[in-house]
Amino acid sequence: MKRAVEAGRGRRLQPLLEPESVTIIGASTDAQKISGRPLRYLLRHGYKGRIYPVNAGAGEVLGLAAYPEVRALPEVPDLAVICVPAARVPAALEACGEHGIPAAVVLSAGFAETGEEGARLQAQAASIAARSGMFLCGPNSVGVINVWRRLTASFSAHLEEGLLAGPIAFVSQSGAMGTTTFNRMQDEGLGFSYFVSSGNQALLEAVDFIEAFLHDDHTEVVAAYIEGVRDGSKVLRVGRLARELGKPIVVLKAGRTDSGRRAALSHTAAVTGSHAVYRTAFRQAGIVMVEDIEELVDACRLLSQHRSLPGARMAVISGSGGVSVLAADHFAKAGLEIPLLSPDTVTTLQQILPPFAACQNPVDVTGQLFASPRLLQAALATAAQDPSVDGIALVLSMAPPDAARRMAEDIVLFAPQSPKPLAVGWLGGSMVEEGRAIIRKAGIPLYTTLPALAAGLRILVEAGRRTQFVEAAHSVGVLPAPRREALERGGILPYLEARALLDHIGIEGPREAIVRDADEAVENAAQLGFPVAVKLLAPALSHKSEAGAVRVNLTTAHAVREAVGDLLEVARTRLAGEPGEGLLVQQMITGGSEFLLGLVRDAQFGNVLTLGAGGILVEVLRDVVHGLPPLSRGEAERMIGELAAARILDGVRGQPRRDREALIDALLRLSTLAETAGDAIEEMDINPLIVREEGRGAFAVDVRVVGRRGL
Amino acid sequence: MKRAVEAGRGRRLQPLLEPESVTIIGASTDAQKISGRPLRYLLRHGYKGRIYPVNAGAGEVLGLAAYPEVRALPEVPDLAVICVPAARVPAALEACGEHGIPAAVVLSAGFAETGEEGARLQAQAASIAARSGMFLCGPNSVGVINVWRRLTASFSAHLEEGLLAGPIAFVSQSGAMGTTTFNRMQDEGLGFSYFVSSGNQALLEAVDFIEAFLHDDHTEVVAAYIEGVRDGSKVLRVGRLARELGKPIVVLKAGRTDSGRRAALSHTAAVTGSHAVYRTAFRQAGIVMVEDIEELVDACRLLSQHRSLPGARMAVISGSGGVSVLAADHFAKAGLEIPLLSPDTVTTLQQILPPFAACQNPVDVTGQLFASPRLLQAALATAAQDPSVDGIALVLSMAPPDAARRMAEDIVLFAPQSPKPLAVGWLGGSMVEEGRAIIRKAGIPLYTTLPALAAGLRILVEAGRRTQFVEAAHSVGVLPAPRREALERGGILPYLEARALLDHIGIEGPREAIVRDADEAVENAAQLGFPVAVKLLAPALSHKSEAGAVRVNLTTAHAVREAVGDLLEVARTRLAGEPGEGLLVQQMITGGSEFLLGLVRDAQFGNVLTLGAGGILVEVLRDVVHGLPPLSRGEAERMIGELAAARILDGVRGQPRRDREALIDALLRLSTLAETAGDAIEEMDINPLIVREEGRGAFAVDVRVVGRRGL
Repeated sequence: MKRAVEAGRGRRLQPLLEPESVTIIGASTDAQKISGRPLRYLLRHGYKGRIYPVNAGAGEVLGLAAYPEVRALPEVPDLAVICVPAARVPAALEACGEHGIPAAVVLSAGFAETGEEGARLQAQAASIAARSGMFLCGPNSVGVINVWRRLTASFSAHLEEGLLAGPIAFVSQSGAMGTTTFNRMQDEGLGFSYFVSSGNQALLEAVDFIEAFLHDDHTEVVAAYIEGVRDGSKVLRVGRLARELGKPIVVLKAGRTDSGRRAALSHTAAVTGSHAVYRTAFRQAGIVMVEDIEELVDACRLLSQHRSLPGARMAVISGSGGVSVLAADHFAKAGLEIPLLSPDTVTTLQQILPPFAACQNPVDVTGQLFASPRLLQAALATAAQDPSVDGIALVLSMAPPDAARRMAEDIVLFAPQSPKPLAVGWLGGSMVEEGRAIIRKAGIPLYTTLPALAAGLRILVEAGRRTQFVEAAHSVGVLPAPRREALERGGILPYLEARALLDHIGIEGPREAIVRDADEAVENAAQLGFPVAVKLLAPALSHKSEAGAVRVNLTTAHAVREAVGDLLEVARTRLAGEPGEGLLVQQMITGGSEFLLGLVRDAQFGNVLTLGAGGILVEVLRDVVHGLPPLSRGEAERMIGELAAARILDGVRGQPRRDREALIDALLRLSTLAETAGDAIEEMDINPLIVREEGRGAFAVDVRVVGRRGL
Repeated sequence: MKRAVEAGRGRRLQPLLEPESVTIIGASTDAQKISGRPLRYLLRHGYKGRIYPVNAGAGEVLGLAAYPEVRALPEVPDLAVICVPAARVPAALEACGEHGIPAAVVLSAGFAETGEEGARLQAQAASIAARSGMFLCGPNSVGVINVWRRLTASFSAHLEEGLLAGPIAFVSQSGAMGTTTFNRMQDEGLGFSYFVSSGNQALLEAVDFIEAFLHDDHTEVVAAYIEGVRDGSKVLRVGRLARELGKPIVVLKAGRTDSGRRAALSHTAAVTGSHAVYRTAFRQAGIVMVEDIEELVDACRLLSQHRSLPGARMAVISGSGGVSVLAADHFAKAGLEIPLLSPDTVTTLQQILPPFAACQNPVDVTGQLFASPRLLQAALATAAQDPSVDGIALVLSMAPPDAARRMAEDIVLFAPQSPKPLAVGWLGGSMVEEGRAIIRKAGIPLYTTLPALAAGLRILVEAGRRTQFVEAAHSVGVLPAPRREALERGGILPYLEARALLDHIGIEGPREAIVRDADEAVENAAQLGFPVAVKLLAPALSHKSEAGAVRVNLTTAHAVREAVGDLLEVARTRLAGEPGEGLLVQQMITGGSEFLLGLVRDAQFGNVLTLGAGGILVEVLRDVVHGLPPLSRGEAERMIGELAAARILDGVRGQPRRDREALIDALLRLSTLAETAGDAIEEMDINPLIVREEGRGAFAVDVRVVGRRGL
């Protein structure tokens, strides 16, 4: 029982986030200094626990009794706030650990962000904290704030102002981004439960705080600014927890571009990794991603109002054709759809609206909007009934102030009875400000530019997305011992071992045979049926085409003989006496489209599935998508949907449609292998997987597997 | 002499934009009605010319003597403002024409935007105006405003407020977008010379107004909202004029996406066309493109302050690593570069900045920024000296108000002596507002979000781009008569005619020969040298590969014979007795990368050059770029630079680099053909053009030309 309580207390990081008592180590008597501010702020904001300043030279700090060292404290406090210079931090942590203090936040800078010497100091601090089982936030943290408890263990100047308690918990890997965003949110009247600056993340990283926040009763929305995640598996775990608890997570992920990643590497020791993989992971985890502070503020507002959209199909209602066109542009760019309305809806709109109105989506009510008070409500109500839309976007522009006020009042009357979520974009300047204020006051999402409206709607769609957390779609059981042993020897697997892995998970290949010489090759080719391919097998030539180790489209015995001759010559020159695995005679799979399926090891997320199309251009065009195991069927479909080259499956240039189901199946089977063999696979490529006509399956024509040495 | 004056008066649209006298046809005595407002606004804003209301039933309108019909007016006014219902507009225009009135703006709606009947009425109005040589604005126009002359021939409610005279002339194809933007701009203190709502553009289109604005002395910046252009050639012409006069043009082009174009088609009879071609045309014309009203407002502000950047290379200075990372992301997305600073600059920064600062671009001054007053100025001055940057972006975040004020004062001191343009992004909320106000007041470009900062800098880069307006790069002289005649017969040209066109412009092909039978084929193949290709030539099979009319890689006489047999069989079944042009034996060009070069006819812009890579995936991935003839060398390089697949030229997968110069040359030669043959070519494809290793040229392996019938 005790253990469970302790575990719960652990996941919630209670001593760090909800301390009953705090000691400030290095508390300065100068209330303006960074080391003087935490105590001043704790007193100013009325922290509800007990406070013990530690200062070797002063008997009193800001009116509180000060202690010369941790050992002299009258009790073991929950949290140590450490403000001493970097060089003295390890000793301070050591003393805290010995005294049994369970949590510390290190506000001092001068660690990994400053170079090698700082990194060593940070590693030392981390190992001391880890050894004593301490929760460590930082170093180089701006602090930890629990607004409901009035805990302000921070030196941030934003604490000079008041704090607004509310449902948003926010962790930021950057102090400046964190306090800047905090300030913007409070300006907008958004209140917080927690604010944590996770700093250099020597032990605890942002995802750990996200997990703790989710367990907190005051918290309804969790927000984060993240540059990188050390342990990617936590991302899917907190996503699942958030879904279970019905609490959305929104993340501003920096380092999306090469420039951004370079900047991140230079400013802290932040691990950034591939943005494509992060995007995949966050989406699979059901996390809402935003790209800017303003979007983060907007997402927190929308999500704390429990808003979402069940899908991306929007009815767009406006009073102007031009506004419709520009709105359609911005919506398309944000991934929103503007579907055709049903014939019934169009007919009804034609009856309601003036003769010159556009009654198909986007609907243009025309300037009559201003003149006829009930027109707008009628149009909104009609469009909202349509089963082909998930939400309503009303886009207004310049209007005389009195007309704007009347329209706003109509919208406020309509909104509560709307069967679909409504958002308003109201462009223009001061003339419509009074109208906007009425909408805003009624709590209807309101935007003053089209990019912001489109971004807001996209956030609502992401928040409403039904993430599937699945168990493996195919059961492949435990990996047979010989398969695992082959992987664990490390390095490139012999071809037959790699093929056996595919057989185990049920991905088919062409019929084939291993031969030693031309006679055997011809005999087997005849049995397999022409045309055939002949390949030279050897781990050293695992990229067979580039190594000149493949001859394809051999239609006669003579051609096979010639090919074998060539390849044996290649073996003599390229392998230089190294043992090969023989020659492979393989039935040609014709009439399909080539894809590349693979597993790559990501430093943060482990085995990541990749899907691309075959051929040299795809390498040039970098058209590749990712997925994290375990893959749901929906995620496999999403991967294919996002691959530009996958349109080839629909049949282009008069070619027949391809077997999409077989490609989905292959992805799901590879996902189960990643789950089962997991860490033992360093790298795996099925290249090409030939996807044939509908109903005719997919065949792995070549496969290359690298085992992970030294597990 | 008279003609020249008249021509000048014409290009400037003087009677329409600067009328000495105005008649209002259908002027209502009800000053609130759409037909009553123009007169009220003219009186209210103090129009400096003479005003004649025409109203059949009233002797007086708003205190002015009214006339029963145009013929009764005491003089021939310059401009007729027409407010009568749509059905009566043709008669009103007829009367104006007969009376010799040189310009009219039709404010009435109910024309092409309402359907077929309205389109007929509009065509009728257009033809009446054209016949009498009248400048016609509209119909369905919100009006014409000349702020300096206080001409307010409009019913827009934004005229209830005051007007701010200034250097910006603005034409909008959408009334609502126009007045909404006008209102936003005036809120920002931006003043106008003209505002024109071009409406349905029956005769004059937005580009015509742009040209007129450029000739106006009050106007320094021309802005436009455009959905489509009827005559694309005007775009390059106004671009050249703008460059000569040193007056920038900024365009908000709607209909960028399929959704947007669909919306545009449904709301007016707007021609939208391919966005890729517009983008190409605007860029070649040196026009700044923006995507949203806020960007348009920002561009007008920056351009009216004569701001620009000589290039896209930015030094980013911030006080926080996190801010640097996010800024780098947004800059990269906007196409801005963050180059490495020179070693000298880095050394100097290391001397100036605190030990933990990041001294490479993006530069992180650290939080010491707040404490050390002169640090920021020193960092800015050092970075601004670096020859590898074109401008300075200072990105600040949350700061205590007093520190923010001090920093702002430092920035204001630095800005006037900065050797490079400076823009400031200051994130965060109310705490830094005082600091921001100081920057804003000093006239330094200031943004409160990173996307807005990046968009503003991109506008400055576009404004500074040195557009090359070139004459043809190669002279190919007049098209020889037989070549032109072949084109003017229309339809698909025989292969030899198409090849002769390429010969004329100097694009090489492989060696080849036309043969009739297998014996001739074998003989010629031996002369050309194996391997060869054999192709069946016939206009009906002009897409040769898809028609099964090509056999490639033939290495023996036997193979050539077989191929000829196959192709003669194809001829029997596919051509069904139609005459072919014989068989082509062609030397194989090996060891190169395939590209597709072509000309397509665009309804707005005439012949447009296209460049893509060969192969099926490019069709799927739609990786194609455009250029408008005449192409400068810089534009040809830009096209290649924008084609994702062109990275293949650098040599991928260990292949050698390709002959980029040969590809540039082929583009320039095709551009001269488009100039010379212009309208006579309906469509042309060189597919593939094989670009070989560096120094080994490019060869047009197949070419297909369609002449334009009925010129």
